[in-house]
Amino acid sequence: MKRLGIIGGMGPMATIDLYKKITELTPAGRDQDHIHIIIDSYPQIEDRTAHIVNGEKSPLPRLLESARRLEAAGAEALLMPCNTAHYFAPDIEREVKTPLIHIVRCTAEAIKNDYPNAKKIGLFATTGTKKAGVYDKILAEYGFETMRFPQALENDVMACIYDGVKAGKTEEYAPLFQKCADEASSLGADVMIAGCTEIPLLLPYIKSGAPFADATLELARAAVKFALEK
Amino acid sequence: MKRLGIIGGMGPMATIDLYKKITELTPAGRDQDHIHIIIDSYPQIEDRTAHIVNGEKSPLPRLLESARRLEAAGAEALLMPCNTAHYFAPDIEREVKTPLIHIVRCTAEAIKNDYPNAKKIGLFATTGTKKAGVYDKILAEYGFETMRFPQALENDVMACIYDGVKAGKTEEYAPLFQKCADEASSLGADVMIAGCTEIPLLLPYIKSGAPFADATLELARAAVKFALEK
Repeated sequence: MKRLGIIGGMGPMATIDLYKKITELTPAGRDQDHIHIIIDSYPQIEDRTAHIVNGEKSPLPRLLESARRLEAAGAEALLMPCNTAHYFAPDIEREVKTPLIHIVRCTAEAIKNDYPNAKKIGLFATTGTKKAGVYDKILAEYGFETMRFPQALENDVMACIYDGVKAGKTEEYAPLFQKCADEASSLGADVMIAGCTEIPLLLPYIKSGAPFADATLELARAAVKFALEK
Repeated sequence: MKRLGIIGGMGPMATIDLYKKITELTPAGRDQDHIHIIIDSYPQIEDRTAHIVNGEKSPLPRLLESARRLEAAGAEALLMPCNTAHYFAPDIEREVKTPLIHIVRCTAEAIKNDYPNAKKIGLFATTGTKKAGVYDKILAEYGFETMRFPQALENDVMACIYDGVKAGKTEEYAPLFQKCADEASSLGADVMIAGCTEIPLLLPYIKSGAPFADATLELARAAVKFALEK
C-alpha cells in the first residue's frame, strides 16, 4: 500500500471532503485496511485566484514548501484538493520528484468514460481557474469544449465559493447555486464539472439538469487506485 | 499562530471528525485565518484495545514514529483523536519533546465547568480504554466517579464502535446506541462521556437523557485555544 500526501487547507473544508471521500472509497473493514495519508493543511498558502487575477503574492513558494514537507515525511504521490492551485502543477512537477495526481486529468478521464457522447462542458470554477485555463487545454485534449459563462453567472459562482462555502455559509448559498446550475443547464451543458473543491459541498443541496462530475471525487478515486494497486 | 500535529487514522473517520471540529471552531472568514495542521493519518497503528485486553502487538512503536514524523514536520503540539491511545500518553510524553494536548484532561475540565454538580459519570468507551483506566484516575482527580457498566452494556457499546462506526455502518447501529444511552441514563449517570472518538459520530442519531460530553469536541476546543493564544 502506497502512502499519499495532501497539500491541503485550500480551504480546510475542501481537504476534509477529499479525505472523507478517500476513506469512504477504500474497501476496509477495520482501521488497518485504510490508506496511510499525510495531510499538510496549510491555509496560509496565498489565495490562488488573487494571484492569477490581481497579481497578488504568489502561492508557489508555500506550495513547494508543503510539497517538500510531505515528500520528507514519506509521501509517494501528492494530491491538491484545490483546482486553481493546479495552475502551478507544472512548477510543482518540475521542482519536486514525487508525482502529482492531477485533478483535471482524473476528471476529464472520468467524463470520457461515463459520458462518451458529451461535448459541451459547463465548468463551475473560480475566476482564477478559468482565467488561468487550468481546465480548457486538458479538456480539449479529450475532445471537450469548455463553455463560456456570462459574467453575471460567473460572479454568482464566485459568491457561492467565497461568500458561501469558504465563509462557512454553505446552506445559505444553496439557492443561489441552484440558480447557477439551472442557468448553465439551460445554456446547453452536456456535463457540468464541480471544478472548485468547494463546489461539491453545495451539490447535496441542489437538483441539476445536466449531470455534475465532481472533480474531488474523481481525484479521490484515482488516489485510492494509486495507493492500493500492486 | 501555532502549528498543530494530529496522530490520526485511529480510525480515519474519527480524525476527520476532529479536523472538522477544529475548522468549525476557528474564527475565520477566509482560508488564511485557519490553523496550520499536519495530520498523519496512519491507520496501520496497531489496534489499541487488542493490545491492552489481549496482549497483541503494541501500537507504541508506530505511535512514536508518527509523533516524531509530526515533530520533524514542525508540529508544536500533538493531538490524538483516539481515547484508548492515551494509555500510551505517558510514554509519548517521555519520548517526544512536543507537548501532547490530552483528551481526558480537556474533557474532565469541561465537565467541571459545565456541570459543577455532576458526580456520576457514564463512560462510553472501548474495553481497552476502560480496562487501562485511561479515564478513571484523571476523572477522580476532578472529583468524579466513573460508573461500572454491566457486561452486556459494555459489549453493546463495543459493537457500536467496531461493527458500527469503524466498519462504516454508523446509521445502522444508531438504534443499539440509543438503547445503550437509555440504559446508562437509567443507571444514574449525571453526565455521559463520548470517550471513544467513534462515539460522537453516533450522537446526531440519538436522544439521550443525561447530557453527553463529547471528548473530541473538548479536544478541538483546547487545540484551537492553544493554536490561537498569543
